[in-house]
Amino acid sequence: MLYMIGLGLGDAKDITVKGLEVLRRCSRVYLEAYTSVLTVGKEVLEEFYGRKLILADREEVEQEANNILKDADISDVAFLVVGDPFGATTHSDLILRATKLGIPYRVIHNASIMNAVGCCGLQLYRFGETVSVVFWTDTWRPESFFDKVKKNRQNGMHTLCLLDIKVKEQSLENLIKGRKIYEPPRYMSVNQAAQQLLEIVQNQRIRGEEPAVTEETLCVGLARVGAEDQKIAAGTLQQMCTVDLGGPLHSLIITGGSLHPLEMEMLSLFSIPEKSSESQSIDGL
Amino acid sequence: MLYMIGLGLGDAKDITVKGLEVLRRCSRVYLEAYTSVLTVGKEVLEEFYGRKLILADREEVEQEANNILKDADISDVAFLVVGDPFGATTHSDLILRATKLGIPYRVIHNASIMNAVGCCGLQLYRFGETVSVVFWTDTWRPESFFDKVKKNRQNGMHTLCLLDIKVKEQSLENLIKGRKIYEPPRYMSVNQAAQQLLEIVQNQRIRGEEPAVTEETLCVGLARVGAEDQKIAAGTLQQMCTVDLGGPLHSLIITGGSLHPLEMEMLSLFSIPEKSSESQSIDGL
Repeated sequence: MLYMIGLGLGDAKDITVKGLEVLRRCSRVYLEAYTSVLTVGKEVLEEFYGRKLILADREEVEQEANNILKDADISDVAFLVVGDPFGATTHSDLILRATKLGIPYRVIHNASIMNAVGCCGLQLYRFGETVSVVFWTDTWRPESFFDKVKKNRQNGMHTLCLLDIKVKEQSLENLIKGRKIYEPPRYMSVNQAAQQLLEIVQNQRIRGEEPAVTEETLCVGLARVGAEDQKIAAGTLQQMCTVDLGGPLHSLIITGGSLHPLEMEMLSLFSIPEKSSESQSIDGL
Repeated sequence: MLYMIGLGLGDAKDITVKGLEVLRRCSRVYLEAYTSVLTVGKEVLEEFYGRKLILADREEVEQEANNILKDADISDVAFLVVGDPFGATTHSDLILRATKLGIPYRVIHNASIMNAVGCCGLQLYRFGETVSVVFWTDTWRPESFFDKVKKNRQNGMHTLCLLDIKVKEQSLENLIKGRKIYEPPRYMSVNQAAQQLLEIVQNQRIRGEEPAVTEETLCVGLARVGAEDQKIAAGTLQQMCTVDLGGPLHSLIITGGSLHPLEMEMLSLFSIPEKSSESQSIDGL
Protein backbone atom coordinates (compact mmCIF):
# COMPACT_ATOMS: atom_id res chain seq x y z
CA MET A 1 0.00 0.00 0.00
CA LEU A 2 1.17 3.52 -0.81
CA TYR A 3 0.21 5.90 1.99
CA MET A 4 0.13 9.60 1.10
CA ILE A 5 0.32 11.32 4.48
CA GLY A 6 -0.19 15.04 5.10
CA LEU A 7 2.05 16.55 7.78
CA GLY A 8 -0.03 19.68 8.22
CA LEU A 9 1.53 23.07 8.85
CA GLY A 10 3.80 23.96 11.74
CA ASP A 11 6.00 21.32 13.32
CA ALA A 12 6.42 17.58 13.94
CA LYS A 13 3.33 17.33 16.16
CA ASP A 14 0.96 18.56 13.46
CA ILE A 15 0.77 15.09 11.94
CA THR A 16 -2.45 13.24 12.76
CA VAL A 17 -2.47 10.34 15.20
CA LYS A 18 -3.51 8.10 12.31
CA GLY A 19 -0.72 9.39 10.08
CA LEU A 20 1.88 8.79 12.77
CA GLU A 21 0.66 5.24 13.46
CA VAL A 22 0.73 4.39 9.77
CA LEU A 23 4.17 5.82 8.99
CA ARG A 24 5.69 3.97 11.94
CA ARG A 25 4.69 0.64 10.44
CA CYS A 26 5.78 1.41 6.87
CA SER A 27 8.90 -0.23 5.47
CA ARG A 28 10.13 2.99 3.79
CA VAL A 29 9.19 6.58 4.57
CA TYR A 30 9.80 9.35 2.01
CA LEU A 31 9.65 13.05 2.82
CA GLU A 32 8.68 15.29 -0.08
CA ALA A 33 10.96 18.27 0.27
CA TYR A 34 10.33 20.72 -2.53
CA THR A 35 6.79 22.13 -2.49
CA SER A 36 6.72 23.32 1.13
CA VAL A 37 8.57 23.19 4.45
CA LEU A 38 7.69 22.94 8.13
CA THR A 39 9.26 25.12 10.83
CA VAL A 40 11.44 22.15 11.79
CA GLY A 41 13.91 20.12 9.73
CA LYS A 42 14.23 16.48 8.76
CA GLU A 43 16.20 15.51 11.88
CA VAL A 44 13.51 16.81 14.26
CA LEU A 45 10.87 14.94 12.30
CA GLU A 46 12.93 11.75 12.37
CA GLU A 47 13.35 11.97 16.10
CA PHE A 48 9.67 12.59 16.79
CA TYR A 49 8.39 10.05 14.27
CA GLY A 50 11.00 7.50 15.36
CA ARG A 51 11.81 6.69 11.74
CA LYS A 52 14.53 7.44 9.21
CA LEU A 53 13.18 9.62 6.41
CA ILE A 54 14.31 9.45 2.79
CA LEU A 55 14.36 12.94 1.25
CA ALA A 56 12.59 13.02 -2.09
CA ASP A 57 13.27 16.04 -4.24
CA ARG A 58 11.35 17.06 -7.35
CA GLU A 59 13.72 15.20 -9.63
CA GLU A 60 13.27 11.91 -7.80
CA VAL A 61 9.50 12.14 -7.51
CA GLU A 62 9.04 13.09 -11.14
CA GLN A 63 11.74 10.93 -12.69
CA GLU A 64 12.27 8.06 -10.34
CA ALA A 65 8.79 7.47 -9.02
CA ASN A 66 9.27 3.76 -9.62
CA ASN A 67 11.95 3.67 -6.90
CA ILE A 68 9.46 5.14 -4.45
CA LEU A 69 6.83 2.63 -5.48
CA LYS A 70 9.18 -0.38 -5.44
CA ASP A 71 7.62 -3.33 -3.56
CA ALA A 72 4.68 -1.16 -2.46
CA ASP A 73 2.43 -3.98 -3.66
CA ILE A 74 3.81 -6.32 -1.02
CA SER A 75 4.81 -3.85 1.71
CA ASP A 76 3.72 -0.43 3.00
CA VAL A 77 5.44 2.73 1.78
CA ALA A 78 4.73 6.19 3.17
CA PHE A 79 5.10 9.41 1.22
CA LEU A 80 4.99 12.43 3.53
CA VAL A 81 3.87 15.80 2.23
CA VAL A 82 3.87 19.10 4.14
CA GLY A 83 0.27 20.31 4.33
CA ASP A 84 -2.16 18.00 2.55
CA PRO A 85 -1.07 15.49 -0.12
CA PHE A 86 -3.31 17.17 -2.70
CA GLY A 87 -1.88 20.65 -2.46
CA ALA A 88 0.50 19.98 -5.33
CA THR A 89 -0.42 18.29 -8.59
CA THR A 90 2.81 16.29 -8.65
CA HIS A 91 1.25 13.99 -6.13
CA SER A 92 -1.66 13.07 -8.38
CA ASP A 93 0.98 11.80 -10.75
CA LEU A 94 2.43 9.47 -8.11
CA ILE A 95 -1.04 8.08 -7.41
CA LEU A 96 -1.68 7.48 -11.09
CA ARG A 97 1.61 5.62 -11.43
CA ALA A 98 0.80 3.50 -8.39
CA THR A 99 -2.63 2.66 -9.79
CA LYS A 100 -1.13 1.61 -13.13
CA LEU A 101 1.24 -0.72 -11.27
CA GLY A 102 -1.72 -2.22 -9.39
CA ILE A 103 -0.57 -0.72 -6.09
CA PRO A 104 -3.42 0.39 -3.83
CA TYR A 105 -3.10 3.78 -2.14
CA ARG A 106 -4.60 5.64 0.77
CA VAL A 107 -4.57 9.33 1.64
CA ILE A 108 -4.30 10.61 5.20
CA HIS A 109 -5.39 14.22 5.00
CA ASN A 110 -4.22 17.21 6.99
CA ALA A 111 -4.48 20.98 7.02
CA SER A 112 -2.95 22.84 4.10
CA ILE A 113 -2.50 26.53 3.43
CA MET A 114 -5.56 26.19 1.14
CA ASN A 115 -7.88 25.84 4.12
CA ALA A 116 -5.79 27.15 7.03
CA VAL A 117 -5.81 30.69 5.55
CA GLY A 118 -9.29 30.86 7.04
CA CYS A 119 -7.51 31.78 10.29
CA CYS A 120 -7.32 35.42 9.18
CA GLY A 121 -11.11 35.62 9.26
CA LEU A 122 -11.80 35.84 5.54
CA GLN A 123 -14.47 33.31 4.67
CA LEU A 124 -13.07 30.31 2.86
CA TYR A 125 -16.03 29.82 0.57
CA ARG A 126 -15.49 33.33 -0.85
CA PHE A 127 -12.06 32.52 -2.28
CA GLY A 128 -11.71 32.33 -6.05
CA GLU A 129 -8.95 30.75 -8.08
CA THR A 130 -5.61 30.46 -6.26
CA VAL A 131 -2.57 31.95 -7.99
CA SER A 132 1.17 31.37 -7.71
CA VAL A 133 3.56 34.31 -7.61
CA VAL A 134 6.99 33.31 -8.89
CA PHE A 135 10.37 34.98 -8.40
CA TRP A 136 11.08 37.27 -11.31
CA THR A 137 14.41 37.09 -13.06
CA ASP A 138 16.03 39.64 -15.34
CA THR A 139 14.54 37.94 -18.35
CA TRP A 140 11.36 36.32 -17.04
CA ARG A 141 8.79 38.57 -15.40
CA PRO A 142 5.40 36.92 -15.87
CA GLU A 143 2.32 39.04 -15.22
CA SER A 144 -0.35 36.66 -16.47
CA PHE A 145 -1.47 35.51 -12.99
CA PHE A 146 -2.72 39.05 -12.50
CA ASP A 147 -5.65 38.32 -14.85
CA LYS A 148 -6.89 35.72 -12.38
CA VAL A 149 -6.69 38.21 -9.53
CA LYS A 150 -8.70 40.62 -11.67
CA LYS A 151 -11.34 38.01 -12.47
CA ASN A 152 -11.63 37.06 -8.80
CA ARG A 153 -12.02 40.68 -7.74
CA GLN A 154 -14.60 41.34 -10.45
CA ASN A 155 -16.58 38.49 -8.93
CA GLY A 156 -16.08 39.73 -5.36
CA MET A 157 -13.78 36.82 -4.48
CA HIS A 158 -10.57 36.80 -2.47
CA THR A 159 -7.34 35.57 -4.07
CA LEU A 160 -4.87 33.42 -2.20
CA CYS A 161 -1.37 34.01 -3.62
CA LEU A 162 1.04 31.16 -2.99
CA LEU A 163 4.56 32.55 -2.96
CA ASP A 164 7.48 30.94 -4.74
CA ILE A 165 9.86 28.49 -3.12
CA LYS A 166 13.23 27.66 -4.67
CA VAL A 167 14.74 24.57 -3.14
CA LYS A 168 17.66 22.64 -4.60
CA GLU A 169 17.93 24.96 -7.61
CA GLN A 170 21.08 25.08 -9.71
CA SER A 171 22.59 28.29 -11.07
CA LEU A 172 22.50 28.50 -14.85
CA GLU A 173 26.28 28.05 -14.87
CA ASN A 174 26.22 24.92 -12.73
CA LEU A 175 23.30 23.56 -14.73
CA ILE A 176 25.15 24.02 -18.03
CA LYS A 177 28.33 22.52 -16.64
CA GLY A 178 26.38 19.62 -15.17
CA ARG A 179 27.63 20.34 -11.66
CA LYS A 180 25.29 19.13 -8.96
CA ILE A 181 25.87 22.24 -6.84
CA TYR A 182 22.71 23.79 -5.48
CA GLU A 183 21.88 27.36 -4.51
CA PRO A 184 20.71 28.08 -0.95
CA PRO A 185 16.92 27.76 -0.63
CA ARG A 186 14.89 30.92 -1.24
CA TYR A 187 11.37 31.65 -0.05
CA MET A 188 9.45 34.64 -1.39
CA SER A 189 8.36 37.06 1.33
CA VAL A 190 5.11 39.03 1.40
CA ASN A 191 7.26 42.15 0.90
CA GLN A 192 8.75 40.80 -2.31
CA ALA A 193 5.38 39.61 -3.62
CA ALA A 194 3.77 42.99 -2.88
CA GLN A 195 6.61 44.82 -4.64
CA GLN A 196 6.22 42.64 -7.72
CA LEU A 197 2.47 43.21 -7.68
CA LEU A 198 2.91 46.97 -7.48
CA GLU A 199 5.32 46.84 -10.39
CA ILE A 200 2.65 45.08 -12.44
CA VAL A 201 0.15 47.75 -11.40
CA GLN A 202 2.58 50.43 -12.61
CA ASN A 203 3.15 48.60 -15.90
CA GLN A 204 -0.58 48.38 -16.48
CA ARG A 205 -0.97 52.10 -15.83
CA ILE A 206 1.84 52.83 -18.31
CA ARG A 207 0.00 50.71 -20.89
CA GLY A 208 -3.17 52.69 -20.17
CA GLU A 209 -4.97 49.72 -18.58
CA GLU A 210 -7.13 49.98 -15.47
CA PRO A 211 -5.38 47.83 -12.83
CA ALA A 212 -7.59 45.48 -10.84
CA VAL A 213 -5.76 46.37 -7.64
CA THR A 214 -4.09 49.54 -6.43
CA GLU A 215 -1.68 50.57 -3.68
CA GLU A 216 -4.73 50.95 -1.40
CA THR A 217 -6.27 47.50 -1.97
CA LEU A 218 -6.83 45.65 1.29
CA CYS A 219 -4.54 42.63 1.58
CA VAL A 220 -3.58 40.13 4.24
CA GLY A 221 -0.05 38.87 4.76
CA LEU A 222 0.38 35.56 6.56
CA ALA A 223 3.55 33.90 7.83
CA ARG A 224 4.13 30.46 9.32
CA VAL A 225 0.40 29.67 9.47
CA GLY A 226 -0.26 26.99 12.05
CA ALA A 227 3.04 27.51 13.87
CA GLU A 228 3.33 28.84 17.42
CA ASP A 229 4.76 32.13 16.09
CA GLN A 230 2.43 32.63 13.13
CA LYS A 231 1.91 36.23 12.07
CA ILE A 232 -1.01 37.81 10.27
CA ALA A 233 -1.12 41.42 9.10
CA ALA A 234 -4.01 43.18 7.36
CA GLY A 235 -3.36 46.40 5.50
CA THR A 236 -2.96 47.99 2.09
CA LEU A 237 -0.91 46.43 -0.67
CA GLN A 238 1.50 49.34 -0.14
CA GLN A 239 1.88 48.39 3.53
CA MET A 240 2.57 44.78 2.52
CA CYS A 241 5.81 46.03 0.90
CA THR A 242 7.32 46.84 4.29
CA VAL A 243 5.44 44.87 6.96
CA ASP A 244 7.77 42.60 8.95
CA LEU A 245 6.36 39.07 9.15
CA GLY A 246 9.59 37.24 10.03
CA GLY A 247 10.83 34.01 8.47
CA PRO A 248 9.17 31.77 5.86
CA LEU A 249 6.73 30.50 4.66
CA HIS A 250 4.68 33.51 3.65
CA SER A 251 1.35 33.80 1.82
CA LEU A 252 -0.57 36.82 0.60
CA ILE A 253 -4.29 37.33 0.19
CA ILE A 254 -5.75 40.03 -2.04
CA THR A 255 -9.26 40.65 -0.76
CA GLY A 256 -12.19 40.59 -3.12
CA GLY A 257 -13.50 44.06 -2.41
CA SER A 258 -16.63 44.21 -0.27
CA LEU A 259 -16.24 42.27 2.95
CA HIS A 260 -18.79 40.64 5.24
CA PRO A 261 -19.02 42.52 8.59
CA LEU A 262 -17.65 39.43 10.36
CA GLU A 263 -14.68 39.37 7.98
CA MET A 264 -14.03 43.06 8.66
CA GLU A 265 -14.17 42.51 12.39
CA MET A 266 -11.78 39.55 12.26
CA LEU A 267 -9.32 41.42 10.01
CA SER A 268 -9.30 44.36 12.40
CA LEU A 269 -7.64 42.05 14.94
CA PHE A 270 -4.67 41.94 12.60
CA SER A 271 -4.60 45.48 11.18
CA ILE A 272 -1.18 47.10 10.90
CA PRO A 273 -0.93 49.98 13.37
CA GLU A 274 -0.86 53.28 11.49
CA LYS A 275 2.35 55.22 11.90
CA SER A 276 1.78 58.86 12.83
CA SER A 277 4.24 59.93 10.14
CA GLU A 278 2.17 58.28 7.43
CA SER A 279 -1.45 58.85 6.60
CA GLN A 280 -2.38 55.82 4.60
CA SER A 281 -6.06 55.12 4.28
CA ILE A 282 -6.92 51.46 4.16
CA ASP A 283 -10.04 50.65 2.17
CA GLY A 284 -12.56 49.82 4.81
CA LEU A 285 -10.36 49.07 7.81
CA MET B 1 -6.49 30.23 26.59
CA LEU B 2 -9.22 29.20 24.17
CA TYR B 3 -8.01 26.40 21.91
CA MET B 4 -9.93 25.91 18.67
CA ILE B 5 -8.99 22.39 17.60
CA GLY B 6 -9.83 20.80 14.27
CA LEU B 7 -10.68 17.10 14.38
CA GLY B 8 -10.20 16.50 10.69
CA LEU B 9 -12.42 14.17 8.70
CA GLY B 10 -12.92 10.49 9.41
CA ASP B 11 -12.65 9.17 12.94
CA ALA B 12 -11.09 9.76 16.38
CA LYS B 13 -7.52 9.23 15.17
CA ASP B 14 -7.70 12.06 12.62
CA ILE B 15 -6.94 14.61 15.32
CA THR B 16 -3.35 15.89 15.25
CA VAL B 17 -0.85 14.82 17.90
CA LYS B 18 -0.68 18.47 19.00
CA GLY B 19 -4.46 18.78 19.20
CA LEU B 20 -4.72 15.64 21.29
CA GLU B 21 -2.01 16.77 23.71
CA VAL B 22 -3.67 20.15 24.13
CA LEU B 23 -7.22 18.92 24.69
CA ARG B 24 -6.01 16.42 27.29
CA ARG B 25 -4.71 19.24 29.45
CA CYS B 26 -7.72 21.56 29.08
CA SER B 27 -10.12 22.03 31.97
CA ARG B 28 -13.21 21.82 29.78
CA VAL B 29 -13.59 20.32 26.30
CA TYR B 30 -16.54 21.26 24.07
CA LEU B 31 -17.52 19.36 20.94
CA GLU B 32 -19.25 21.44 18.29
CA ALA B 33 -21.99 19.18 17.01
CA TYR B 34 -23.99 20.95 14.33
CA THR B 35 -21.93 21.90 11.30
CA SER B 36 -20.44 18.47 10.57
CA VAL B 37 -20.01 14.96 11.95
CA LEU B 38 -17.32 12.30 12.02
CA THR B 39 -17.96 8.63 11.25
CA VAL B 40 -17.84 7.93 14.98
CA GLY B 41 -19.93 9.36 17.82
CA LYS B 42 -19.19 11.29 21.00
CA GLU B 43 -18.60 8.18 23.12
CA VAL B 44 -15.89 6.83 20.81
CA LEU B 45 -14.18 10.22 20.81
CA GLU B 46 -14.37 10.41 24.62
CA GLU B 47 -12.79 7.01 24.96
CA PHE B 48 -9.95 7.73 22.56
CA TYR B 49 -9.28 11.25 23.81
CA GLY B 50 -9.60 10.14 27.43
CA ARG B 51 -11.79 13.14 28.24
CA LYS B 52 -15.46 13.91 28.81
CA LEU B 53 -16.83 16.07 26.00
CA ILE B 54 -19.52 18.72 26.44
CA LEU B 55 -21.79 18.79 23.39
CA ALA B 56 -22.28 22.31 22.09
CA ASP B 57 -25.18 22.81 19.70
CA ARG B 58 -25.80 25.86 17.56
CA GLU B 59 -28.02 27.47 20.19
CA GLU B 60 -25.34 27.23 22.87
CA VAL B 61 -22.49 28.45 20.73
CA GLU B 62 -24.45 31.38 19.35
CA GLN B 63 -26.40 32.34 22.46
CA GLU B 64 -24.38 31.11 25.38
CA ALA B 65 -20.85 31.63 24.15
CA ASN B 66 -20.00 33.22 27.47
CA ASN B 67 -20.49 29.87 29.22
CA ILE B 68 -17.98 28.31 26.87
CA LEU B 69 -15.51 31.13 27.50
CA LYS B 70 -16.01 31.17 31.29
CA ASP B 71 -12.64 31.24 33.11
CA ALA B 72 -10.77 30.76 29.84
CA ASP B 73 -8.58 33.68 30.91
CA ILE B 74 -7.24 31.69 33.87
CA SER B 75 -7.56 28.12 32.53
CA ASP B 76 -7.48 26.30 29.20
CA VAL B 77 -10.69 25.53 27.34
CA ALA B 78 -10.85 23.46 24.15
CA PHE B 79 -13.48 23.83 21.45
CA LEU B 80 -13.42 20.90 19.05
CA VAL B 81 -14.66 21.29 15.51
CA VAL B 82 -15.01 18.55 12.89
CA GLY B 83 -12.73 19.45 9.98
CA ASP B 84 -10.91 22.75 10.49
CA PRO B 85 -12.12 25.41 12.95
CA PHE B 86 -12.51 27.95 10.13
CA GLY B 87 -14.86 25.94 7.98
CA ALA B 88 -17.89 27.62 9.53
CA THR B 89 -18.24 31.34 10.19
CA THR B 90 -19.83 30.72 13.59
CA HIS B 91 -16.39 30.04 14.92
CA SER B 92 -15.03 33.46 13.96
CA ASP B 93 -17.74 34.81 16.22
CA LEU B 94 -16.45 32.79 19.19
CA ILE B 95 -12.93 34.11 18.60
CA LEU B 96 -14.17 37.69 18.43
CA ARG B 97 -16.03 37.27 21.72
CA ALA B 98 -12.94 35.77 23.35
CA THR B 99 -10.79 38.63 22.11
CA LYS B 100 -13.25 41.19 23.49
CA LEU B 101 -13.06 39.47 26.86
CA GLY B 102 -9.26 39.61 26.75
CA ILE B 103 -8.99 35.84 26.36
CA PRO B 104 -6.12 34.71 24.12
CA TYR B 105 -6.87 31.98 21.59
CA ARG B 106 -4.97 29.50 19.47
CA VAL B 107 -6.04 27.48 16.47
CA ILE B 108 -4.89 23.93 15.82
CA HIS B 109 -5.68 23.30 12.19
CA ASN B 110 -6.72 20.12 10.45
CA ALA B 111 -8.06 18.90 7.14
CA SER B 112 -11.49 20.10 6.12
CA ILE B 113 -13.69 19.20 3.20
CA MET B 114 -12.51 22.51 1.66
CA ASN B 115 -9.06 21.06 0.98
CA ALA B 116 -9.61 17.30 1.23
CA VAL B 117 -11.82 17.34 -1.90
CA GLY B 118 -8.53 17.45 -3.75
CA CYS B 119 -8.50 13.66 -3.30
CA CYS B 120 -10.73 13.27 -6.37
CA GLY B 121 -7.95 14.68 -8.53
CA LEU B 122 -9.50 18.03 -9.43
CA GLN B 123 -6.94 20.74 -8.76
CA LEU B 124 -7.71 22.72 -5.63
CA TYR B 125 -6.51 26.03 -7.00
CA ARG B 126 -9.09 25.80 -9.80
CA PHE B 127 -12.07 25.88 -7.43
CA GLY B 128 -14.24 28.99 -7.41
CA GLU B 129 -16.72 30.12 -4.80
CA THR B 130 -18.12 27.31 -2.63
CA VAL B 131 -21.89 27.00 -2.43
CA SER B 132 -24.30 25.43 0.06
CA VAL B 133 -27.23 23.36 -1.14
CA VAL B 134 -30.06 23.38 1.40
CA PHE B 135 -32.98 20.99 1.82
CA TRP B 136 -35.99 22.38 0.00
CA THR B 137 -39.32 22.54 1.77
CA ASP B 138 -42.80 22.89 0.27
CA THR B 139 -42.57 26.65 0.66
CA TRP B 140 -38.83 27.40 0.46
CA ARG B 141 -36.97 26.31 -2.67
CA PRO B 142 -34.04 28.67 -3.09
CA GLU B 143 -32.27 28.66 -6.46
CA SER B 144 -29.97 31.63 -5.97
CA PHE B 145 -26.83 29.55 -5.29
CA PHE B 146 -27.09 28.42 -8.88
CA ASP B 147 -25.87 31.87 -10.02
CA LYS B 148 -22.57 31.20 -8.28
CA VAL B 149 -22.22 27.84 -10.03
CA LYS B 150 -22.86 29.65 -13.30
CA LYS B 151 -20.25 32.30 -12.57
CA ASN B 152 -17.71 29.65 -11.61
CA ARG B 153 -18.34 27.67 -14.77
CA GLN B 154 -18.13 30.79 -16.94
CA ASN B 155 -14.68 31.31 -15.45
CA GLY B 156 -13.68 27.66 -15.91
CA MET B 157 -13.72 26.96 -12.17
CA HIS B 158 -15.04 23.97 -10.28
CA THR B 159 -17.78 24.41 -7.67
CA LEU B 160 -17.76 22.56 -4.38
CA CYS B 161 -21.33 22.13 -3.16
CA LEU B 162 -21.62 21.58 0.59
CA LEU B 163 -24.78 19.63 1.27
CA ASP B 164 -27.24 20.49 4.01
CA ILE B 165 -27.15 18.99 7.49
CA LYS B 166 -30.12 19.20 9.84
CA VAL B 167 -29.17 18.34 13.39
CA LYS B 168 -31.33 19.03 16.44
CA GLU B 169 -34.07 20.65 14.37
CA GLN B 170 -37.57 21.05 15.76
CA SER B 171 -40.72 20.46 13.75
CA LEU B 172 -42.79 23.61 13.21
CA GLU B 173 -45.40 22.21 15.59
CA ASN B 174 -42.91 21.51 18.37
CA LEU B 175 -41.26 24.88 17.81
CA ILE B 176 -44.59 26.73 18.14
CA LYS B 177 -45.59 24.74 21.20
CA GLY B 178 -42.16 25.33 22.73
CA ARG B 179 -41.52 21.59 23.05
CA LYS B 180 -37.84 20.72 23.07
CA ILE B 181 -38.41 17.63 20.93
CA TYR B 182 -36.01 17.25 18.07
CA GLU B 183 -36.33 15.55 14.70
CA PRO B 184 -33.87 12.80 13.77
CA PRO B 185 -30.77 14.22 12.05
CA ARG B 186 -30.87 14.51 8.26
CA TYR B 187 -27.95 14.68 5.88
CA MET B 188 -28.43 15.57 2.23
CA SER B 189 -27.18 12.91 -0.16
CA VAL B 190 -25.56 13.50 -3.52
CA ASN B 191 -28.70 11.96 -5.08
CA GLN B 192 -30.95 14.53 -3.42
CA ALA B 193 -28.65 17.42 -4.31
CA ALA B 194 -28.45 16.30 -7.95
CA GLN B 195 -32.24 15.98 -8.15
CA GLN B 196 -32.69 19.51 -6.78
CA LEU B 197 -30.11 20.80 -9.24
CA LEU B 198 -31.87 19.15 -12.16
CA GLU B 199 -35.16 20.66 -11.04
CA ILE B 200 -33.53 24.10 -11.14
CA VAL B 201 -32.23 23.32 -14.63
CA GLN B 202 -35.78 22.43 -15.70
CA ASN B 203 -37.18 25.60 -14.15
CA GLN B 204 -34.63 27.69 -15.99
CA ARG B 205 -35.54 26.02 -19.28
CA ILE B 206 -39.23 26.71 -18.63
CA ARG B 207 -38.35 30.36 -18.06
CA GLY B 208 -36.41 30.37 -21.34
CA GLU B 209 -33.02 30.79 -19.65
CA GLU B 210 -29.88 28.98 -20.74
CA PRO B 211 -28.91 26.77 -17.76
CA ALA B 212 -25.23 26.81 -16.76
CA VAL B 213 -25.28 23.05 -16.27
CA THR B 214 -27.19 20.26 -17.95
CA GLU B 215 -27.95 16.59 -17.32
CA GLU B 216 -24.63 15.81 -19.04
CA THR B 217 -22.35 18.10 -16.99
CA LEU B 218 -19.46 16.22 -15.44
CA CYS B 219 -19.78 16.05 -11.65
CA VAL B 220 -18.05 14.28 -8.80
CA GLY B 221 -19.88 12.83 -5.82
CA LEU B 222 -17.88 12.27 -2.64
CA ALA B 223 -18.88 10.47 0.54
CA ARG B 224 -17.11 10.16 3.89
CA VAL B 225 -13.95 11.83 2.59
CA GLY B 226 -10.98 10.85 4.74
CA ALA B 227 -12.69 7.77 6.20
CA GLU B 228 -11.60 4.20 5.52
CA ASP B 229 -14.70 3.61 3.41
CA GLN B 230 -14.73 6.89 1.47
CA LYS B 231 -16.39 6.77 -1.92
CA ILE B 232 -15.83 8.94 -4.96
CA ALA B 233 -17.84 8.73 -8.17
CA ALA B 234 -17.34 10.78 -11.33
CA GLY B 235 -20.13 10.97 -13.85
CA THR B 236 -22.87 13.13 -15.30
CA LEU B 237 -25.22 15.17 -13.13
CA GLN B 238 -27.91 12.73 -14.28
CA GLN B 239 -25.86 9.81 -12.95
CA MET B 240 -25.44 11.61 -9.63
CA CYS B 241 -29.21 11.23 -9.10
CA THR B 242 -28.88 7.48 -8.70
CA VAL B 243 -25.26 6.66 -7.80
CA ASP B 244 -25.01 4.80 -4.49
CA LEU B 245 -22.41 6.41 -2.23
CA GLY B 246 -23.61 4.98 1.09
CA GLY B 247 -24.00 6.90 4.36
CA PRO B 248 -23.24 10.57 5.14
CA LEU B 249 -21.53 12.99 4.80
CA HIS B 250 -21.77 13.67 1.09
CA SER B 251 -20.39 16.49 -1.06
CA LEU B 252 -20.85 17.26 -4.73
CA ILE B 253 -18.52 18.95 -7.17
CA ILE B 254 -19.71 20.50 -10.41
CA THR B 255 -16.69 20.66 -12.68
CA GLY B 256 -15.75 23.89 -14.39
CA GLY B 257 -15.81 22.62 -17.94
CA SER B 258 -12.42 22.03 -19.55
CA LEU B 259 -10.20 19.82 -17.43
CA HIS B 260 -6.45 19.49 -17.21
CA PRO B 261 -5.26 16.12 -18.60
CA LEU B 262 -4.07 15.13 -15.12
CA GLU B 263 -7.53 15.95 -13.70
CA MET B 264 -9.15 13.82 -16.41
CA GLU B 265 -6.85 10.91 -15.69
CA MET B 266 -7.49 11.08 -11.94
CA LEU B 267 -11.28 11.32 -12.43
CA SER B 268 -11.22 8.29 -14.70
CA LEU B 269 -10.16 6.25 -11.63
CA PHE B 270 -13.57 7.05 -10.19
CA SER B 271 -15.82 7.00 -13.25
CA ILE B 272 -19.17 5.28 -12.85
CA PRO B 273 -19.25 2.09 -14.91
CA GLU B 274 -21.64 2.51 -17.82
CA LYS B 275 -24.62 0.16 -17.74
CA SER B 276 -25.22 -1.60 -21.03
CA SER B 277 -28.91 -0.68 -20.86
CA GLU B 278 -28.11 3.02 -20.81
CA SER B 279 -26.10 4.98 -23.29
CA GLN B 280 -25.21 8.11 -21.43
CA SER B 281 -22.35 10.10 -22.82
CA ILE B 282 -20.27 11.80 -20.20
CA ASP B 283 -18.63 15.03 -21.34
CA GLY B 284 -15.02 14.07 -21.75
CA LEU B 285 -14.79 10.92 -19.64
